[in-house]
Amino acid sequence: MTTGIKIMWINPLGYDAYDQPMADFIAGIKRDDTQVDVVSLDVPGSPNHLEYRTYEGLMLGDTIRATREAAVNDYDAVVIGCFYDPGIEDAREISGEAVVVAPCQASVQIAANLANRFSVIVGREKWVGQMTERVTTYGYRDKLASMRAINLGASELQTDCGLTISRIMEAGRRAIEEDGAEALLLGCTCNFGLYRDVQAELGVPVIDPICAAFKMAEDLAHMKKVFGWTPSRIGSCAPPPEEELASFGVFTGRTSIKNRVSA
Amino acid sequence: MTTGIKIMWINPLGYDAYDQPMADFIAGIKRDDTQVDVVSLDVPGSPNHLEYRTYEGLMLGDTIRATREAAVNDYDAVVIGCFYDPGIEDAREISGEAVVVAPCQASVQIAANLANRFSVIVGREKWVGQMTERVTTYGYRDKLASMRAINLGASELQTDCGLTISRIMEAGRRAIEEDGAEALLLGCTCNFGLYRDVQAELGVPVIDPICAAFKMAEDLAHMKKVFGWTPSRIGSCAPPPEEELASFGVFTGRTSIKNRVSA
Amino acid sequence: MTTGIKIMWINPLGYDAYDQPMADFIAGIKRDDTQVDVVSLDVPGSPNHLEYRTYEGLMLGDTIRATREAAVNDYDAVVIGCFYDPGIEDAREISGEAVVVAPCQASVQIAANLANRFSVIVGREKWVGQMTERVTTYGYRDKLASMRAINLGASELQTDCGLTISRIMEAGRRAIEEDGAEALLLGCTCNFGLYRDVQAELGVPVIDPICAAFKMAEDLAHMKKVFGWTPSRIGSCAPPPEEELASFGVFTGRTSIKNRVSA
Amino acid sequence: MTTGIKIMWINPLGYDAYDQPMADFIAGIKRDDTQVDVVSLDVPGSPNHLEYRTYEGLMLGDTIRATREAAVNDYDAVVIGCFYDPGIEDAREISGEAVVVAPCQASVQIAANLANRFSVIVGREKWVGQMTERVTTYGYRDKLASMRAINLGASELQTDCGLTISRIMEAGRRAIEEDGAEALLLGCTCNFGLYRDVQAELGVPVIDPICAAFKMAEDLAHMKKVFGWTPSRIGSCAPPPEEELASFGVFTGRTSIKNRVSA
Amino acid sequence: MTTGIKIMWINPLGYDAYDQPMADFIAGIKRDDTQVDVVSLDVPGSPNHLEYRTYEGLMLGDTIRATREAAVNDYDAVVIGCFYDPGIEDAREISGEAVVVAPCQASVQIAANLANRFSVIVGREKWVGQMTERVTTYGYRDKLASMRAINLGASELQTDCGLTISRIMEAGRRAIEEDGAEALLLGCTCNFGLYRDVQAELGVPVIDPICAAFKMAEDLAHMKKVFGWTPSRIGSCAPPPEEELASFGVFTGRTSIKNRVSA
Amino acid sequence: MTTGIKIMWINPLGYDAYDQPMADFIAGIKRDDTQVDVVSLDVPGSPNHLEYRTYEGLMLGDTIRATREAAVNDYDAVVIGCFYDPGIEDAREISGEAVVVAPCQASVQIAANLANRFSVIVGREKWVGQMTERVTTYGYRDKLASMRAINLGASELQTDCGLTISRIMEAGRRAIEEDGAEALLLGCTCNFGLYRDVQAELGVPVIDPICAAFKMAEDLAHMKKVFGWTPSRIGSCAPPPEEELASFGVFTGRTSIKNRVSA
Repeated sequence: MTTGIKIMWINPLGYDAYDQPMADFIAGIKRDDTQVDVVSLDVPGSPNHLEYRTYEGLMLGDTIRATREAAVNDYDAVVIGCFYDPGIEDAREISGEAVVVAPCQASVQIAANLANRFSVIVGREKWVGQMTERVTTYGYRDKLASMRAINLGASELQTDCGLTISRIMEAGRRAIEEDGAEALLLGCTCNFGLYRDVQAELGVPVIDPICAAFKMAEDLAHMKKVFGWTPSRIGSCAPPPEEELASFGVFTGRTSIKNRVSA
Repeated sequence: MTTGIKIMWINPLGYDAYDQPMADFIAGIKRDDTQVDVVSLDVPGSPNHLEYRTYEGLMLGDTIRATREAAVNDYDAVVIGCFYDPGIEDAREISGEAVVVAPCQASVQIAANLANRFSVIVGREKWVGQMTERVTTYGYRDKLASMRAINLGASELQTDCGLTISRIMEAGRRAIEEDGAEALLLGCTCNFGLYRDVQAELGVPVIDPICAAFKMAEDLAHMKKVFGWTPSRIGSCAPPPEEELASFGVFTGRTSIKNRVSA
Repeated sequence: MTTGIKIMWINPLGYDAYDQPMADFIAGIKRDDTQVDVVSLDVPGSPNHLEYRTYEGLMLGDTIRATREAAVNDYDAVVIGCFYDPGIEDAREISGEAVVVAPCQASVQIAANLANRFSVIVGREKWVGQMTERVTTYGYRDKLASMRAINLGASELQTDCGLTISRIMEAGRRAIEEDGAEALLLGCTCNFGLYRDVQAELGVPVIDPICAAFKMAEDLAHMKKVFGWTPSRIGSCAPPPEEELASFGVFTGRTSIKNRVSA
Repeated sequence: MTTGIKIMWINPLGYDAYDQPMADFIAGIKRDDTQVDVVSLDVPGSPNHLEYRTYEGLMLGDTIRATREAAVNDYDAVVIGCFYDPGIEDAREISGEAVVVAPCQASVQIAANLANRFSVIVGREKWVGQMTERVTTYGYRDKLASMRAINLGASELQTDCGLTISRIMEAGRRAIEEDGAEALLLGCTCNFGLYRDVQAELGVPVIDPICAAFKMAEDLAHMKKVFGWTPSRIGSCAPPPEEELASFGVFTGRTSIKNRVSA
Repeated sequence: MTTGIKIMWINPLGYDAYDQPMADFIAGIKRDDTQVDVVSLDVPGSPNHLEYRTYEGLMLGDTIRATREAAVNDYDAVVIGCFYDPGIEDAREISGEAVVVAPCQASVQIAANLANRFSVIVGREKWVGQMTERVTTYGYRDKLASMRAINLGASELQTDCGLTISRIMEAGRRAIEEDGAEALLLGCTCNFGLYRDVQAELGVPVIDPICAAFKMAEDLAHMKKVFGWTPSRIGSCAPPPEEELASFGVFTGRTSIKNRVSA
Repeated sequence: MTTGIKIMWINPLGYDAYDQPMADFIAGIKRDDTQVDVVSLDVPGSPNHLEYRTYEGLMLGDTIRATREAAVNDYDAVVIGCFYDPGIEDAREISGEAVVVAPCQASVQIAANLANRFSVIVGREKWVGQMTERVTTYGYRDKLASMRAINLGASELQTDCGLTISRIMEAGRRAIEEDGAEALLLGCTCNFGLYRDVQAELGVPVIDPICAAFKMAEDLAHMKKVFGWTPSRIGSCAPPPEEELASFGVFTGRTSIKNRVSA
């Protein structure tokens, strides 16, 4: 009923090693006629993870620029591929007709249809505070049973998948038994694909943040095409006027996208 | 990537006049290979609307029974077709592997991806309190700009669509200008189809509750098939044991579904 | 100063074995001139407990019908005899001039006059989520120290009172020492009468849900008679119009009350 | 079933002109065998109202002392007779086995059984902030439709009852029509008796704070006698040790009660 | 840029043994041209600590009177020297042009600039409930990691400083490791001076309540002088009219200050 | 008692026209021995205001870089000079021993010592949502009477000061009379200096965001020096390890500060 849609998945890092594997993973879950570009940013001196607010902050400008590029190039949806959902509100302002989705919000929305309480399995204790704020902002604080850390950094999660999975299972089991979790969310996009084994073992829904974010983006993009549900552009959602952008030269000069892989 | 899915749309009333038009409407928005059955209930002395808690309460038993029928007949998703989302928590307990969705929750989840604040246009002032509780329960109270009533009962909404639309536009305009709404939700499934004109006129996303609930159900059903995300069945999500159901004879005896129309 | 009042105690089950013992218990605590009828419902295939949302939902219709019967038969108050307070909002809409009371709300209101924080001793972990929602809805979430389960189902609570009491004492002691509870609430009407021993042993107020609900109902019924404080019937409290009820035939046909015992 | 109970009603002022009329009013609503003493305090330079925090603060010490006198003289309940509920938490700590009740908390608890939302009609705008805090502390903020002031000070409320009633009616009508109130609370004990006319005219429950506080005290006192529900004395409810009180001489020296009238 | 300022530090007790040591401590932290008077109250039968609400309530009247004396004697700021911040709202009403500060509010405001979550180390478990309410009222509930008691009464805290410090370190360490505290607040003014050792050992900011309250008072007093930021005197901040105070004789007769030491 | 302190005031814009006037203004309010540098950023294509999330996001990276420069150059405090407090959490992570302050948080903390409820006067309606989130995050939502816009952009506020002041007075008057504000906050740093006239006219405290932020920074910097209260560096406050920063080259290459003026 709709023609195919076009999605930009932004890895908000000046580091491109995740682009291809994520593109491959997304290729396996997208609808046939969906076009997906996985991109990373042109940030010199970039870290290869976003475990600190400092790092997220340093990537924000180019995340916004990449979103702007999506907007002016007719993408239907943009995904910001990090469970902190970094810059989601900012990107939503400048995304034009593209819907902006991110893993944390997508995951809690899906989970709330499947369970009354859920836990998030994160890499490090450090992440807990900020991600709890995210969940709170989205309105799901009362449904959060706990956040549990497995003491692995983002860049280690795919290093030894067996180790990662066994730690997630241990943390997930305790979340279920001690914290009252009824579903689990994997709190890092680097976990992609690991949910299956955990889910099979623990017997509760285990939400993979890439699957969640990507499908929510794809589905909202379809709704946009069929029902005309584009992002609101009034009130707090109003973007800077185009003339103003032009006069300051805000988006002139350079692209923020350094690497691009099609899924 | 998935085989077709099967959805039961429950009009939670012992009144079948909405079944055919809703089936027709849904036929126009579903994926090709989705099978949809629109059903209404076997409740003698049923009202033709649910504007009172009394009425909702009287329908709840058979809503649960219909959900049970969906569960044992391999439906992938159930939609409870009323913006009060009546019995959503109860139905979710007994739905087996079927995901249960309802219009209010689906609408606020979608709207939160498109706007920071939204208003719900309801039929009567009477509905406001209970629907506000719903929105609060789902975690979206802070994003609710207002509820505004148009002084039409549920059964009047499709009587004179021109009148209904003009009142929705008037209420929507005031929600935008006075209450700070950036998107609108239509707070009754009887509004189906009316969103288009309002959206075109007011220039903000206008969420049709049938479109929202149906697509969310369809999309979650797909995720269920692909990712194995069935409803949690532990903790507060645990259903009564099958042996207990059998020994009491809870679901024996009769069907609760009186009318069934395929979309 | 008032003439005697009339109270209907609804055991919201199609199961009548509790009716006589509850009537006997209430006979011991009522004022001399209060007339009390303990009733159970006409629900075929009824469970003998309400530990699942499914079961509560299945009883709701007839709870509403019984409340309606109370309303048209000049009862001053109705009590819904289950600590989930099932259908309290719905019953309040249709209760006419009868005040509707239920154990959870009555218990927290009384407890808040006696302690700053309290715990609820429940039967099973399963109950915790839903009862916490109740307490939250009534506004007492901040005063809830904890909910603690004793791993006994509702129907087991009066089987071996010694066992039940000893488990309540153990759970209550931990609620006091570990959770900061200053008073205890017994979270199931099947606990009736057990509070005395626990209270004597633990030295804190232990609220029996039947005592709490019944006395609150009796007292509010007296206030109604003396001060004219009948339930509000405007706004969200407005019931369906009588003509509409008649035209749909909502309450015609049958009684929902199968068993009736006078206290 | 119980022997008569004994209640101390404290007018928390060093001003005794309200004592007799309140005693007379209470005499008309108490149970036959309830003994009531209405007292006021021995505070030189006392104002005749408590419209300022300064005044309430100046009365608090002697309110505590009077409560202590009730505790050691076998009163079953103490009422602090001002809608600010001044010192309710402090008095509850030192009240021994006496239950402490105050008008605001009693009124909101009763109202919540009769309506989903209510408004408080206060004397002056100045009162709104502090009373809203009270309602919030008790957990009823979400049920508060509004506070509306009638621009009369506490000491003026009984001066020209016709005027007071007409202003209450005007404010109450607007609370109902504009704010969604379904019941009204009169936010000053000086309003005693005025509720009847307002209630008859407006057709919603109108809670008189003296009736509410007194009956709640009387009913809780009965529960105390029958069920043993005395105030908790552990955790945050623990009072100073008697030996410490004696060694400091905290309560030695003088009575804080200057005037005493039996109802 | 400003002339010197004048601060009254009220030890809200009829007990003067803390006055001199606190004056000495403050002398070491004040600006050169700040004049400070440490006072205690004229309350016969006073306890030497405020660990009970009863005691706080008994001191409130004279705390208000002392604040009034500060107001009419051109003090720029008043500090209520107890971590319960007893009577802060009442004192603020009557303080005229003097800013009123208290340790709990000052400490949480400072801490929130240095850490995202903090714990309060209190003397006894008894204090936890009421202090948590304070933190909540000030808006910092979400930033409170925990309250941990060290089982020492206020009057014991300076008896054996070594013991106190070692217990604070133990409690602080657990707050950091188990509760996620990132800074510590010492929850009693009797802790003055002990923060240094704890801070050096634990490596997180440790807020001394006297330092916090005093500096905040001094800084706000300077802002008052330079920017004209005196306390608001409208709305809920309006004080009783001077004529009314005079006609009742509220503040005539006696001073509430028994002891006065200059820092 | 302390040697002079060093403060960096960051105008988070790639636009330097505000630097000199702000430096001049700050020179008039700082302590004699405080050294202040007002800086702006090296962002090509920078807007001259931050009224959009897009713009704030584009400045964030260099705000973080400037904060890092302050940290490694022994500044005692950093102020982020915009009432949105853009990047305050991120900057706090990387600020080393420098305290990070921003106008909104500083203003609400000061205001809460002077009034129970306050309003913020903002430039445009657009700002309201995001600034309300800020106030909420800081814990002051319940004290916020309203936000009122004067329909002037940030860059227009100093164009015609007479016009700006008259609009602020009009909005402030309505905030006081209609919304219950007892103090006012000026919600843009471009308002600097305008508070005096408004305060004189309206008779309530009017908080200038530059005065508030600067004095809070200066005072916290002094506390840091005297009491050792540096920012926490554990838990959610932990910064990236220095070795990691070096290995990625995060802060190598260039300065983010383009212009620097000493106050």
